Amino acid sequence: MRILVTNDDGVRSPGIRALAEALSTIAEVWIVAPDRERSAASHSISLHRPLRISKVDERVFSTDGTPSDCVYLAVNHLLQGNRPDFLASGINHGPNLADDITYSGTVAAALEGTMLGIPSVAFSLCLRGRSTEGMAASAQFARSFMAGLAQRHLAPGILLNVNVPVGSDGASYRVTRQGKRAYGNEVIERTDPRGRRYYWVGGDELAHENIPGSDANAVYDEGVISVTPLHLNMTSDATREEMASWQFPGTARRDHE
Amino acid sequence: MRILVTNDDGVRSPGIRALAEALSTIAEVWIVAPDRERSAASHSISLHRPLRISKVDERVFSTDGTPSDCVYLAVNHLLQGNRPDFLASGINHGPNLADDITYSGTVAAALEGTMLGIPSVAFSLCLRGRSTEGMAASAQFARSFMAGLAQRHLAPGILLNVNVPVGSDGASYRVTRQGKRAYGNEVIERTDPRGRRYYWVGGDELAHENIPGSDANAVYDEGVISVTPLHLNMTSDATREEMASWQFPGTARRDHE
Repeated sequence: MRILVTNDDGVRSPGIRALAEALSTIAEVWIVAPDRERSAASHSISLHRPLRISKVDERVFSTDGTPSDCVYLAVNHLLQGNRPDFLASGINHGPNLADDITYSGTVAAALEGTMLGIPSVAFSLCLRGRSTEGMAASAQFARSFMAGLAQRHLAPGILLNVNVPVGSDGASYRVTRQGKRAYGNEVIERTDPRGRRYYWVGGDELAHENIPGSDANAVYDEGVISVTPLHLNMTSDATREEMASWQFPGTARRDHE
Repeated sequence: MRILVTNDDGVRSPGIRALAEALSTIAEVWIVAPDRERSAASHSISLHRPLRISKVDERVFSTDGTPSDCVYLAVNHLLQGNRPDFLASGINHGPNLADDITYSGTVAAALEGTMLGIPSVAFSLCLRGRSTEGMAASAQFARSFMAGLAQRHLAPGILLNVNVPVGSDGASYRVTRQGKRAYGNEVIERTDPRGRRYYWVGGDELAHENIPGSDANAVYDEGVISVTPLHLNMTSDATREEMASWQFPGTARRDHE
């Protein structure tokens, strides 16, 4: 078994090291990851600038691109002829839960792997601040879970989003649904020393709606690992069918034959 | 009717002006948009830095945040007491099709509106380069479509992703499914004047798999406007049910009661 490991915190982060080390006991691990923290960068493929690749170590590479770029370069160039059986992204330092997953570089890497036809899992540890508490338990779960997944079939176009609570036992998990963010719809107004106003959005960044069976509830209320299966394709077929009866003046619906 | 208009190309872009002008004939329009082009920026809510708001004109504001920040600040602060009935994002200069929609600031703004409970539509014009050909037809369609939508009910958690081909008649559209990107899985290696190698990813950025009924086929093969209904929630319930039978050594699945 061959596993491609990447992340968005950078090739030197403790999370990717813990993940790669744990997975190397069950597979041949290749690391292709950003050369620095890329959490705030665009998550798309870099079409308009060239990319550099550096060899860091045996089967360890860094690039100056996004997490998605790393996956693309790994599968289509660095590991050509050595196609990975799985992709594992993480372990991200911080949660990737609820509606905010579309903004996550860790999840974006797993989306990219899924697009390229490789079963992909994103791992995140629900930490705040600089602590690495819970990293060993996260890595332990990643190893057990990827070993189990190797015996199963993950449907094409589906990726898995894993979030580990800080106090995890490294084993207990729940299969969840994507939850809902609840920042409190708050905007806090302040005035700077020059008398100009500025604004902070949201209240608690970890606030989520209390939805039984959701990712956030598993992690924060039950203290178990959350595993959410996600569709790459976001189409709503129900609404698509409903829209077949819409007739708007000034428009002409052309139905597909 | 009140419509909030935003985008990711910035408050001064031709696309947002064309959209706002067209919609102002059917609704009270408010513009809250980034003060500069934000296509390459992170698309999430800015939790870790304060934001500035500038009043540009009557009911026109810019912020130094992301498109999502603009929507959040508009709904929870600037338009408090004047809650918008709809959100229209765009008209983006360039396509937002297939798998790449998760990377789009234009779509991110519509996702944010949907999260906040406002029926939201993202409009993109499938241009390359600096031309604005097709902008008038796009704006015409946006007006007809939003006027029609005002008479209908868009299900909560669903947003619409509209892509207009350059040669559009401003009326003909098809209800589509999200397509698949096909960059050709190509990596082109070059050598710089200093002898170091660098890499270009992908082939043609507009390449998509030929899938009948997809967004890209409507736009590029049929020359009609594509309207794709998208789920905010990406959970795959089919895979979730299948995972209920998984038993992986070293893990303990805790099912929700």
